[in-house]
Amino acid sequence: MLNHVDFNRHMTDIEYRLETREVRGELAQLQHRMKESKLPVIVLFEGWDSSGKGSMIASMIQTLDPRFFKVYNTKDPTPEEQRYPFLWRHWRRTPERGQMAIFDESWYPEVSRARLENNLSVDEAYSRMESINTFERELSQDGYLIIKFFLHISAKEQAHRQEKLMRDKNTRWRVTERDQYRNKHYKEYYRVYDEMLEKTNTVFAPWHVISAQERRSAMNEIYQVIVQSIRSALDEKKVIIPSEYHAQMHTFHLVKKPLLEDVPLYRSIDEDVYRNLLHKEQKKLAKLHNIVYRKRIPVIVAYEGWDAAGKGGNIKRLTAALDPRGYEVVPIASPTPTEKAHNHLWRFWQHFPEDGHITVFDRTWYGRVMVERLEGFCTEEEWKRAYQEINELEYELQKWGAILIKFWLHIDSDEQLRRFKERQETPEKQWKITDEDWRNREKWDQYETAVNDMIRLTSTEYAPWTIVESQDKKFGRIKAIQTLNDAIEARI
Amino acid sequence: MLNHVDFNRHMTDIEYRLETREVRGELAQLQHRMKESKLPVIVLFEGWDSSGKGSMIASMIQTLDPRFFKVYNTKDPTPEEQRYPFLWRHWRRTPERGQMAIFDESWYPEVSRARLENNLSVDEAYSRMESINTFERELSQDGYLIIKFFLHISAKEQAHRQEKLMRDKNTRWRVTERDQYRNKHYKEYYRVYDEMLEKTNTVFAPWHVISAQERRSAMNEIYQVIVQSIRSALDEKKVIIPSEYHAQMHTFHLVKKPLLEDVPLYRSIDEDVYRNLLHKEQKKLAKLHNIVYRKRIPVIVAYEGWDAAGKGGNIKRLTAALDPRGYEVVPIASPTPTEKAHNHLWRFWQHFPEDGHITVFDRTWYGRVMVERLEGFCTEEEWKRAYQEINELEYELQKWGAILIKFWLHIDSDEQLRRFKERQETPEKQWKITDEDWRNREKWDQYETAVNDMIRLTSTEYAPWTIVESQDKKFGRIKAIQTLNDAIEARI
Repeated sequence: MLNHVDFNRHMTDIEYRLETREVRGELAQLQHRMKESKLPVIVLFEGWDSSGKGSMIASMIQTLDPRFFKVYNTKDPTPEEQRYPFLWRHWRRTPERGQMAIFDESWYPEVSRARLENNLSVDEAYSRMESINTFERELSQDGYLIIKFFLHISAKEQAHRQEKLMRDKNTRWRVTERDQYRNKHYKEYYRVYDEMLEKTNTVFAPWHVISAQERRSAMNEIYQVIVQSIRSALDEKKVIIPSEYHAQMHTFHLVKKPLLEDVPLYRSIDEDVYRNLLHKEQKKLAKLHNIVYRKRIPVIVAYEGWDAAGKGGNIKRLTAALDPRGYEVVPIASPTPTEKAHNHLWRFWQHFPEDGHITVFDRTWYGRVMVERLEGFCTEEEWKRAYQEINELEYELQKWGAILIKFWLHIDSDEQLRRFKERQETPEKQWKITDEDWRNREKWDQYETAVNDMIRLTSTEYAPWTIVESQDKKFGRIKAIQTLNDAIEARI
Repeated sequence: MLNHVDFNRHMTDIEYRLETREVRGELAQLQHRMKESKLPVIVLFEGWDSSGKGSMIASMIQTLDPRFFKVYNTKDPTPEEQRYPFLWRHWRRTPERGQMAIFDESWYPEVSRARLENNLSVDEAYSRMESINTFERELSQDGYLIIKFFLHISAKEQAHRQEKLMRDKNTRWRVTERDQYRNKHYKEYYRVYDEMLEKTNTVFAPWHVISAQERRSAMNEIYQVIVQSIRSALDEKKVIIPSEYHAQMHTFHLVKKPLLEDVPLYRSIDEDVYRNLLHKEQKKLAKLHNIVYRKRIPVIVAYEGWDAAGKGGNIKRLTAALDPRGYEVVPIASPTPTEKAHNHLWRFWQHFPEDGHITVFDRTWYGRVMVERLEGFCTEEEWKRAYQEINELEYELQKWGAILIKFWLHIDSDEQLRRFKERQETPEKQWKITDEDWRNREKWDQYETAVNDMIRLTSTEYAPWTIVESQDKKFGRIKAIQTLNDAIEARI
C-alpha cells in the first residue's frame, strides 16, 4: 500500500487555514454528538519514527474537549506485560462508549517492527495479525469506530529530521540509537510495514496511509478523514458486514456434549472415600501447581452452574491445594456502570492471569448468553453474536498457551429447591439466598435451554465444557479437581 | 521488638484443631458483618523468607468467602513502578469498604530489605517510614482496620527450611540465590527489621510479631489476633486518636494569601499583546517540557475555579505547548460507586504522572472541602480532617520531587452570570451549562467561604495556591502559563 502514496503534495499556510477552519469547527461539534449517541472512537497513529505523529496529535487534540478523549502512548511491552496475551494491554485501553481514545502507536509495532527487532517469527506475526483483525472486527461489530493512520515519509526525509533533532541538546533524547538503526535499515522496515498494512486493511478498520513529507497537507487529510468517518458512523451507526466476509471468519470445530436432561445425577461417593480422594488429588494439584509455575503455563478455570449447585464449596476445595502467590479467585458480579460502558468482554480481560498463574472465575463471560439473554440486558443480535465472540476470546487464550477449563455445575430442580429451603432455615446461610435466586428459579426451563445452547455452541476442541454432576457435592468436588489435574498433566 | 518473641511454643495437632475450630467459625461469620457494616480490612504478612507466609495465608483464606477478600503478592517495584511515588502502587491496592485485602509482603520491604539490597540510605528509609505511618494513620482515621503480622524465625530454622525446599526440583525455584544470601546475612537483616518494627509500631496499626518456628501455634495466634481485631473494630467503629499523638503529627507552615474579595479583578490585556505573550510563553514551555522530561521531574498542575471561570480554555492554551507523549489532562467528575467505596484520595492516586511527565487535573482532590462540604456528601468530621490529609498528600508528592502548581481561577459573581447567559444563548455552548451550575451559583457566598478556608489552610510553602484573575480570560491564560514556566525554571 505504501507505493500508492503521493509524496509531492504541498499546502501553503493560508491554504491550510482556510481548508481546515471549517473541518476543525465541525470536529469540535461532532465530539458532543459522539458523547450523546455514545459512539466510542479509536484513532490510532502508526508510521515511521519522526514522521510527526506526536506533534500532529498535539495540534489535533487542541480542537477537542479533554473530557472526551485520552491519548495513549504505547511503548514496547514491559517484561510484566509480556507475561499476558499480546492483546491484553490493548484490550484494557479500549475506550468507553462516547469517548475517544487516541493512540500514538498501538498494537501494530508488535506485528511489524517486532519482526526485525525482537525476532518475531513470520508465523507468529501472521497469527497476531489474525488476532488483530478479529479484535478490530469485534469492536466495530459492537459499534466502535476505528480510524487507522499510517504516516509515511521517505528514508531521506527521516534522516533529515533526525539530524535536526540531534542538533538541540533538549530534543536529542528523542533520537535514540535504535531510531538511527531504523533509518539505516529503512528498506527492511518498509517491507514489514507494507505487509502489515496489506494484511490488516479490513472493511471494519481500513488503513489511511498519509504522506507526512509535508505537515500541512497531512494534517488537513487527517482532519478530513476523522470528520468524515465520525459523521458517517453517527449517521448509520451499525457496521454492515459483507456476507462474503463471514466465509473468512474463523470457524470452530465443536465437540458433542449431552443435553442437561440426559446427564445422570445419581452418582455419589461415601464420606471416607471422598476424604481420601480429596486429600490425594489436592496433594497432586499442589505438585502440579509448582510445575505450572516453573513452566509458565497460564491456567484459567471457569465456574458456571445453577444457583446453589455448590460453586463456592467446589472452588474452595480446589484452591485449598494452591499457593496464594500463584492463584486468584475472581468473583463476577453484575457489571458496574464503567464496565457496562465498554465491550462486554472488556472486564474479563482485566482479570486473566499472568503466565504460570491460575485464575478461577466464579461466574464468567458466559453471563451474556445466559442471564443477559434471558433478562433482556442485551439485544438478541448481541447475545447471538456472543457465541462467536466467546469462541474467539477462548481461541485467543489458547493461542497464548493457556489451559482453559470450563465447569457447568449441574443439579436438578428438586435438589435446588431443597438447598434453597435449607439455606433459608439455617441462619448463617441466609445471606446466601436472595429473592433473585427465587426469581431465576422460576425461569428454570428457559435457563436450561440457554445453557444447552451455550454448551452446544461453545464446546470447542480446545475449550470444551465439563458438566460436573453436583447432586452429590462430594462427587462434584472430586470430579472438578481431577479434571483440572488431568488437563495439566496432559499438557506437561 | 524481635527479642521479645518466644521461640519455644508448640501445639499438637489435636490442641490446634480444638483451639481454632471456634475462632475459624467466628471468622467465617465476621466477614459477613464486615460486609454489612462496610468495614475495610488490610491484613499484611511480613517476615523472614520461608517463615511460612504463603502457606499460612493459604490455610487462613480457606475459612473466607472469595468474594470478600483479595490476596496481593507484592514483588520488588518494577522499573515502571519506580517512576512513581513510593506509596503509589500501594495506595492503589487499598481495598473497598467491606472488603479484605491480604498482603503477602506489602510496603515494608521497601523500608527494610531495600536498605541492604538497593542501598537505600538511612535518611530515605526514615522518610519512607514517616510516609508509611501517615498512610496508615489516614486509612485508620478513615475507618480502615490494619492488622500487621511479622513472622519471625531463627537463622538456623530458616537455613533448615531452605535445604528442605532445595531437595525437590519442583520447589527448588522457590529458593533463590538471594534467599541464601539473606540467610547468610541474617544478623544484618535482623537489625533493619527490628528498627522497622520499632518505628512503624503505631496506635493505628500496631505490629503483631509471631514466632513461626512452629506452624500450628503461629496459625492459632494469627486467627486469634484477626478475629479479636475485627470484632472490636466492628463494635467500636471509630479509631480514637490519643491527644498526645496530635503533637507528633506533621505540622505545615502556611503561606498567607489574600481573601477572594480582596483580589483585584480589573486587570486585562489587549488582543495583540496577548497573542505575542501567549506565543512566547508557549514556546518557552515547550522547551521546558523537554528539560523536565530529560531530568525526570514530575509536574502536577491542579485547576480549580468558579464555574465558567474558563478552566477549559486556560488548560487548552497551556497544553497546546506540550508533546502529548509527555502530558495528560485528567478531568475529575463526581466519584463512581467504586471510587466512593474507597478513601476519597484513592482515585487521585490512580492519576499522578510518572516522573518526567505532566498531569493537568481539571478539578481535583479539593472537591471534598468544597462541593462535598457544602452539599453534605461527607460528614463535617471528614471535610475538617481533609485539610490535613490533603497537605500530607501534597507533602508526599513534594518529597517525591514533584513540582505542584495549584490554580484558583477567579471571577466575580456578575461576570459568572454574564457568561452563564451567554452560554445559554449560544447553541454550540449550551452543553457547557447545566441546572447544577445554576444551583451552585445560588450558593456563591457559602462557596466563597469554603474557598477562602481552602486557600488559607492548604497554601503550604511547597504547594501554595495561585489565584488566577480570570475576569479577563486572556490575562488569566498568560498568568497561568507564566506561573508554570517560572516554577519549572526555578527548579532546573
